Amino acid sequence: MPYFDAASSAPLHPVARQALQASLDEGWADPARLYREGRRARLLLDAAREAAADAVGCRPDELVFTPSGTRALHSGIAGALAGRRRTGSHLAVSAVEHSAVLHAVEGRPVTEVPVDRWGAVSPGVFGEALREDTALACLQSANHEVGTEQPVAEVAERCRTAGVPLLVDAAQSLGWGPVGGDWSLLTASAHKWGGPAGVGLLAVRKGVRFAPQDPADERESGRAPGFENIPAIVAAAASLRAVRDSAETEARRLRKLVDRIRARVPQLVPDVEVVGDPVRRLPHLVTFSFLYADGETVLHELDRAGFSVSSGSSCTSSTLTPSHVLRAMGVLSEGNVRVSLPAGTAQEDVEHFLEVLPGVVAGVRNRLGAPVAGETSPGSAPESVPRSAPESAPGSASGSASGSGPASLVVDALGTRCPVPVIELAKVIGDVPVGATVTVLSDDEAARLDIPAWCAMRGQEYVGRSPAPAGTAYTVRRR
Amino acid sequence: MPYFDAASSAPLHPVARQALQASLDEGWADPARLYREGRRARLLLDAAREAAADAVGCRPDELVFTPSGTRALHSGIAGALAGRRRTGSHLAVSAVEHSAVLHAVEGRPVTEVPVDRWGAVSPGVFGEALREDTALACLQSANHEVGTEQPVAEVAERCRTAGVPLLVDAAQSLGWGPVGGDWSLLTASAHKWGGPAGVGLLAVRKGVRFAPQDPADERESGRAPGFENIPAIVAAAASLRAVRDSAETEARRLRKLVDRIRARVPQLVPDVEVVGDPVRRLPHLVTFSFLYADGETVLHELDRAGFSVSSGSSCTSSTLTPSHVLRAMGVLSEGNVRVSLPAGTAQEDVEHFLEVLPGVVAGVRNRLGAPVAGETSPGSAPESVPRSAPESAPGSASGSASGSGPASLVVDALGTRCPVPVIELAKVIGDVPVGATVTVLSDDEAARLDIPAWCAMRGQEYVGRSPAPAGTAYTVRRR
Repeated sequence: MPYFDAASSAPLHPVARQALQASLDEGWADPARLYREGRRARLLLDAAREAAADAVGCRPDELVFTPSGTRALHSGIAGALAGRRRTGSHLAVSAVEHSAVLHAVEGRPVTEVPVDRWGAVSPGVFGEALREDTALACLQSANHEVGTEQPVAEVAERCRTAGVPLLVDAAQSLGWGPVGGDWSLLTASAHKWGGPAGVGLLAVRKGVRFAPQDPADERESGRAPGFENIPAIVAAAASLRAVRDSAETEARRLRKLVDRIRARVPQLVPDVEVVGDPVRRLPHLVTFSFLYADGETVLHELDRAGFSVSSGSSCTSSTLTPSHVLRAMGVLSEGNVRVSLPAGTAQEDVEHFLEVLPGVVAGVRNRLGAPVAGETSPGSAPESVPRSAPESAPGSASGSASGSGPASLVVDALGTRCPVPVIELAKVIGDVPVGATVTVLSDDEAARLDIPAWCAMRGQEYVGRSPAPAGTAYTVRRR
Repeated sequence: MPYFDAASSAPLHPVARQALQASLDEGWADPARLYREGRRARLLLDAAREAAADAVGCRPDELVFTPSGTRALHSGIAGALAGRRRTGSHLAVSAVEHSAVLHAVEGRPVTEVPVDRWGAVSPGVFGEALREDTALACLQSANHEVGTEQPVAEVAERCRTAGVPLLVDAAQSLGWGPVGGDWSLLTASAHKWGGPAGVGLLAVRKGVRFAPQDPADERESGRAPGFENIPAIVAAAASLRAVRDSAETEARRLRKLVDRIRARVPQLVPDVEVVGDPVRRLPHLVTFSFLYADGETVLHELDRAGFSVSSGSSCTSSTLTPSHVLRAMGVLSEGNVRVSLPAGTAQEDVEHFLEVLPGVVAGVRNRLGAPVAGETSPGSAPESVPRSAPESAPGSASGSASGSGPASLVVDALGTRCPVPVIELAKVIGDVPVGATVTVLSDDEAARLDIPAWCAMRGQEYVGRSPAPAGTAYTVRRR
């Protein structure tokens, strides 16, 4: 049963399991105590800190263990901002940071640095976001949804010139190698590299102004309150060392598997957009979006077929909005699938996935009444009403839609959810003459992203959007 | 090698170990994901929440798992205060709360409710501390240093009448049983009952105004950000159930062992004060302080003899101040030893401890040149200079000290640390006639507590303290 969602959480590495079990006997006592059980716990903690610092590329006294990567980000951002209170409170962050970063900076003056269609920031544009009153810059080492690596070293150089500390969220990349460049703070999360849950890392370079914002606590240099989880910390450090030992070989192997997925999926499945940088990327991660498919059903069908993947589609989020990463990149969000291979993934599992995927997507599209590939108007009725809005009829064309070749057409897709508005658009675009427009009325948040993305993929002209009495009107001109 | 510091951290319970290992295979995935690994993780998390809520005595949806007891306190206090922002910002907390509580309320208007000599608050006095603008009251279920149980139910009743939510820190007692009374919030820590590190509990009763203060996060109802540590959570819940199953029997057994320690120590060792309530107390915990001994050396000697205990003496703290609990109780802090027996402690280990202890204390006192029991002035020179201030000579008597029976005497103990100032006082009190005074000059923080405590133990009159050109002058009248 192949698990292809390592970017969410990696299965426990055998070394992590071994180290965890071994240190349960030695690492349960309070390392602040002076008796033998405490001294033993302290030795384990010190050794783990040295190993982890070595892997991060910092001094042991620059590194603390936090209860999670999220807490490392929260504490790191809060402490760095407080340490630079007198400079200002502005932040510069990439628009594709993890939500833990974006939530931690909510309510503050923030410049979200845009990304290109591959998901990367430009060092020059990032540098322009740095102001006199910028207290902190945040940039991930690589994106968690699309795998694109960020130009951290170049951005760190711009930050250094501007005198702004740079916090790097290395959650997705630390298992693959240290983060280059002159960063000031770095965070990571052990369960992303096969370590146990319950351990994050926060490194703060000497000389970086830092004022912890949690209540006072003597543990972890006052930067991570609460009793240390030493068995998990030992397991985290040991497994980080272990995955690093095989990182180069395994990265090369997984990169080939991902290259194969990137190449084969568009050959096997029509109307797909592979997103993210094809070269400057994490070795094990690839994301694609299927036109006319809904992510949640694709995920369910893949799960039934034995494959565990995740999605940034709006239908799979509790807020019914597409992933902010896909939005920032301006790429299609419907039918989104992220594949992230854990270390050790077998080639035959990938081949099996490539065998299964086309049928899954075709099945989902068929049930939604999606246009057949290559046709702009399928001419055939859907086999069933759309799954995502079973109680509402699929959008109906109206306005000057009678007769063939009307000058314009309005499609009412109100009340339907992704991917139905795009399917309705695709079904009627062939009904208007070249140069005429189709306007889709939709109150689905995903349409804002997916209608322009559809236009780009199909070579149609996206005219724009305007508020409608209910929802938003998206206008497309047939080319 | 008996470990007698369960109140710091209990050794991992076999059930915790078993549950942890078993759930490493099932509980590593993201419980928010919909594929099978995520669903399995979610099932484990839900089952653990139900078990823990049952043990706490609350609804599962009132309980979240935090990364530690400290974080549960931080989040609970911050959320409750924010939820009652419009009422005010005042807090009422007992003076003997855990430092995690006291640090979390620093900088806010706080009334520290005093405790009696046994360490307990009075419900009436606690009630008087509740004001119109009191946002939150905090009271531990039982004290972590002296074992005294607090009248939680009675205080909860006063809080209810005043319309103030009560947060109960149940870290030390939850393994022994649920907290009675009408509390509003409750916190606990798994490693105190034999669960793993990395798991705290925060229960917030329905209807209690609560506004989480951490950055937004979808996990744990938004009350505990960061990826859930499910194997540890499963182990915490399973071990809580297991320790509860045997709690009554084990409490009865340990209570007898502690009763024996409480009775025998004063018979075996002269000049000792057993502190804390003898009856309304945790079953497994007892604390005593030895006159003329320094806690750090006693701990070291006990460790060499194979016993791991802790101490609230100033010499064992990084701040060189005695435990705030002992201070609030007004009891002796020098030579302080806390014994907290883990479940399963063998009677012979306790007997062995009682055999070893007298020699350890006598040895420490002897090296410090402490007065021999029963004498007020030993007449013999110390075998060595005091360990705690090796570079300074022991305090020398001066002023009108020449001849026998001076009307008053001044002892300069500046630069010496606990227990030296008290030893110097004890050595000269017999040199002044009844009704005359001895004044001790000391800059040791512990003297403020230990000189009055010595007077109470020795039947001497503590006149008071006043600022001196260097340090503080403590005056004692011989009776």
